[in-house]
Amino acid sequence: MTGRKTGLFRRACACCGIDVHCHVVPSHFPEPPGGRDIKGWPSMTPVTDCHATVVIDTKPYRTINDACWAAERRIAAMDAAGIQIQALSPMPELFGYWIEAEAADGLVRHVNDVIAAMVEEGKGRFVGLAGLPLQDIDLSLKELNRIMSELGFAGIEIGSNINGVPIGDPKFHPLFAEAERLGAAVFVHAVRPAGMDRLVGPAPLQQVLAYPTDVGLAAASVITGNLLTKFPKLRIAFSHGGGTFASLLPRLEQGYATFPALKEALVEPPSVQARRLYADTLVFDTETLRRVTEVFGPERILIGTDYPFNFREADPLARIVEAFDAPDLRERLSFANALEFLNIEEDAND
Amino acid sequence: MTGRKTGLFRRACACCGIDVHCHVVPSHFPEPPGGRDIKGWPSMTPVTDCHATVVIDTKPYRTINDACWAAERRIAAMDAAGIQIQALSPMPELFGYWIEAEAADGLVRHVNDVIAAMVEEGKGRFVGLAGLPLQDIDLSLKELNRIMSELGFAGIEIGSNINGVPIGDPKFHPLFAEAERLGAAVFVHAVRPAGMDRLVGPAPLQQVLAYPTDVGLAAASVITGNLLTKFPKLRIAFSHGGGTFASLLPRLEQGYATFPALKEALVEPPSVQARRLYADTLVFDTETLRRVTEVFGPERILIGTDYPFNFREADPLARIVEAFDAPDLRERLSFANALEFLNIEEDAND
Repeated sequence: MTGRKTGLFRRACACCGIDVHCHVVPSHFPEPPGGRDIKGWPSMTPVTDCHATVVIDTKPYRTINDACWAAERRIAAMDAAGIQIQALSPMPELFGYWIEAEAADGLVRHVNDVIAAMVEEGKGRFVGLAGLPLQDIDLSLKELNRIMSELGFAGIEIGSNINGVPIGDPKFHPLFAEAERLGAAVFVHAVRPAGMDRLVGPAPLQQVLAYPTDVGLAAASVITGNLLTKFPKLRIAFSHGGGTFASLLPRLEQGYATFPALKEALVEPPSVQARRLYADTLVFDTETLRRVTEVFGPERILIGTDYPFNFREADPLARIVEAFDAPDLRERLSFANALEFLNIEEDAND
Repeated sequence: MTGRKTGLFRRACACCGIDVHCHVVPSHFPEPPGGRDIKGWPSMTPVTDCHATVVIDTKPYRTINDACWAAERRIAAMDAAGIQIQALSPMPELFGYWIEAEAADGLVRHVNDVIAAMVEEGKGRFVGLAGLPLQDIDLSLKELNRIMSELGFAGIEIGSNINGVPIGDPKFHPLFAEAERLGAAVFVHAVRPAGMDRLVGPAPLQQVLAYPTDVGLAAASVITGNLLTKFPKLRIAFSHGGGTFASLLPRLEQGYATFPALKEALVEPPSVQARRLYADTLVFDTETLRRVTEVFGPERILIGTDYPFNFREADPLARIVEAFDAPDLRERLSFANALEFLNIEEDAND
């Protein structure tokens, strides 16, 4: 693979985790193209020296700290948490799927360029997962090729749905065909989730309840759409431990055994297909992490933290140690699976 | 409690299960009131001597067998499966929440009267859980009083949402206040679920994936709406093992610890409130049953099978035996919790 700006992992100690789920927000955004007012276009309002508020359509979306864009701040936090490499991906609201495609393409390229600069600055501590303007598949394939060949990214981050269409829908096959061909890792993150009208309570319930709901349905759609039997070399990971998928799987398996229409539709049983998918450890509960590891398999679980946001797993390595005793299993979850998922080479000369 | 037509449970052997999740479909439906064409009104088309198709808006909804309405057919099946008592509830599509309220009230009363007749015929083998026309709370309170005082039902079955509004919404407080006052058990079943636009594949995925998704969000809405701290004596059970709730809870708990707005909104932590709720065993997986029992607590799990539909748990007692060794825990899940939930008396003179 050419152009990779990082890719050397050093097996220094037991605490060399790789975090596949952590986000970047640029310190500034360009003006909307043509100086027009474009719905959904973000801007940044400084709050303090180290904090700023992302503003979308004149409404504050989220106040964040400079770890979102400052490589050295992140590296200090990574050292403290035993994380050797972070895979940097956009904050999902920056996907811009709901913005007209040409403009969104510009926004996404800006964010990807910011990530590329951080990867460069990180000297091996970061790899990149790019956003794509998935409301337009042709533009997405172009950007996918740019970030893989020119920027040397490890892969892409995509929404659990694109403007309401789940990622298991056949319309996204051209994207996944190209991701498979290029060896791009695909990290699936919740965005604009289903179930919003089922929430009773304050705004954070979108992240807390609707995000894992949408991710669970996205993972199920990938299985009922036979995505991995069609593209068997595709590496695709689901955020938030696959969301509600662990709860859905036994019922999906029983449905497959019960309904002829489902049996016909699925190339392999759901529980078999599940073990072709990756998921992260971001479940905030040791027993749930064990369950997720059973569902997807011990070779499929990757550290995910949601760094640097408040609602994150602060000590992912401690969670793994608490969940599992076997050293090889701990190693798999801490970094070995992520080396495979992100296609990172291990440096033999330490 | 007056008017109860059943309520004597005999502790005959280890195999005296009580099934709180099984459905009734009447063998026929009345004509829509006034001979009008009412959207959503069901009719029945005979297929064979023992099968018929429920037709809604000229489209076949589901072909069912006579166990849906014939008491003796059910009792034979119950004897074979070790189920001593079934709590009979309407097939959820018969809730008719989407039909104009006055007409729906007539439909629901018809279904409830059919259930009352089966309870009568069953001579102690059945209790009733009534449907209510919840698009109109006043009509619902009337019917709730009728089924509790005149028909001697054990309680009600309600949707996980009422025309898109989750049951944790404060607008339903008058319903739950009256259910608590009357001692009516509340069984929550999925209907017209969220997430339908996230499915890729054949029609049964509605039941398979969207049903548990909607139930999980409904259980969460009851917690984030503090329903059980407001009505602490309310007995409320969630179908399908609480759906996706077991996957949502750890993230909800962490959200509660992270977001001040959530901390302020919730009277008790989510994991504490969860143990005020009941859930059924209908999860099709032993490990998942264990997990659900941890989440809701060993005193809160009830047998649920979805009898007599194809997509059901055929041997619920075997599942309990496989999941748990302790005799008192098996007893709790098999019948002791259900005696409390349904307020059934145990017959000391066997």
